[in-house]
Amino acid sequence: MILYDYYRSSAAYRVRIALNLKELDYQQQTVSLVAGEQRSAEHLARNPQGFVPALQDGELLLTQSMAICEYLDERYPETRSFLPSSIADRAKVRAMALLVACDIHPLNNLRMLKYLVSELGASHEQKTDWYQHWVYQGFDALEQMLDANAGDFCFGDQVSLADISLVPQVYNAHRFECDMSRYPNINRVNENCIQLKPFMMAHPDQQVTE
Amino acid sequence: MILYDYYRSSAAYRVRIALNLKELDYQQQTVSLVAGEQRSAEHLARNPQGFVPALQDGELLLTQSMAICEYLDERYPETRSFLPSSIADRAKVRAMALLVACDIHPLNNLRMLKYLVSELGASHEQKTDWYQHWVYQGFDALEQMLDANAGDFCFGDQVSLADISLVPQVYNAHRFECDMSRYPNINRVNENCIQLKPFMMAHPDQQVTE
Repeated sequence: MILYDYYRSSAAYRVRIALNLKELDYQQQTVSLVAGEQRSAEHLARNPQGFVPALQDGELLLTQSMAICEYLDERYPETRSFLPSSIADRAKVRAMALLVACDIHPLNNLRMLKYLVSELGASHEQKTDWYQHWVYQGFDALEQMLDANAGDFCFGDQVSLADISLVPQVYNAHRFECDMSRYPNINRVNENCIQLKPFMMAHPDQQVTE
Repeated sequence: MILYDYYRSSAAYRVRIALNLKELDYQQQTVSLVAGEQRSAEHLARNPQGFVPALQDGELLLTQSMAICEYLDERYPETRSFLPSSIADRAKVRAMALLVACDIHPLNNLRMLKYLVSELGASHEQKTDWYQHWVYQGFDALEQMLDANAGDFCFGDQVSLADISLVPQVYNAHRFECDMSRYPNINRVNENCIQLKPFMMAHPDQQVTE
């Protein structure tokens, strides 16, 4: 398997966690978002959106991090399921995972922040306010959902798709200096996750940066 | 089942299509986004994000439209599956569905457009440019993915989760006067979908508006 990757991409970080949890071997090939390599013809042939990650598994080229995580869970069911067995519980896990993947992360990624500055003339302060605003909106709701659902992890005491989605977003929230003291549940779950080797090895600081 | 709904919400529109495809009976209860009812204590108890849709199925309260669609597909497998049977094909369908659900719709919904105007002083023209920009970015990529995957519908000749996600976004693209002549595949698939009764009955014009 080849993961087309960039160390600071939250979406790629999710897939690194998922691959590690499944104990799968994979090669990483860096697509530098800073150098604009995501817009090369070569990468656009892998992913017409020009995003990382893309995952090559044999003949198959996969895009969209949450679709890739679901694929890995279905294709490699032997090791650690990302979803509980009950249909109702699966819906709860997916709702928490998608809260982050749909309603926080896409609003705050690089292309968005660039547009704010170049097209709307946003100042550094306005950009930071924007970033923090959508993190707080999402995490305020997630914190409440964790009241109802969390144990050591987002859903009970098993790592799930919700944790895979959450941990990279917490990393980003710290980078953008969000006030995380408001979120005891999120902090507890995040601390429990980042002590596990599959999460540790997926951390941006553990990757090649170029 | 009770669907907490608003006629113009794209995410609610998706769930209406999904419920209709599954031939399930449901009551609709309007949560007026224009009147601010989504911020009432009553609705926040259903969904801490204060979004529609929320779906009550017996004791269970579900949020996040894509998680709800996956739930309906798992819980009611008898009628029309939203995903193909092959694991590889399921990943392709989910990638197309999530392209719209993560990378177009959340950037363009009401709360975002309000923030652009109130916090960043965006003009009407800048707001429209923003809207169209993210539609074009997403649809340019989706159009190529449909080259590889589409038949009468997004994936071959069967309605799937990708169509459920796409049709409400095309409706919105028309509302915001996007140039849809650039997307022959998207238009063909959309036309095929909207002629089907489950899509027709889910259309915003067919709903109670208050």
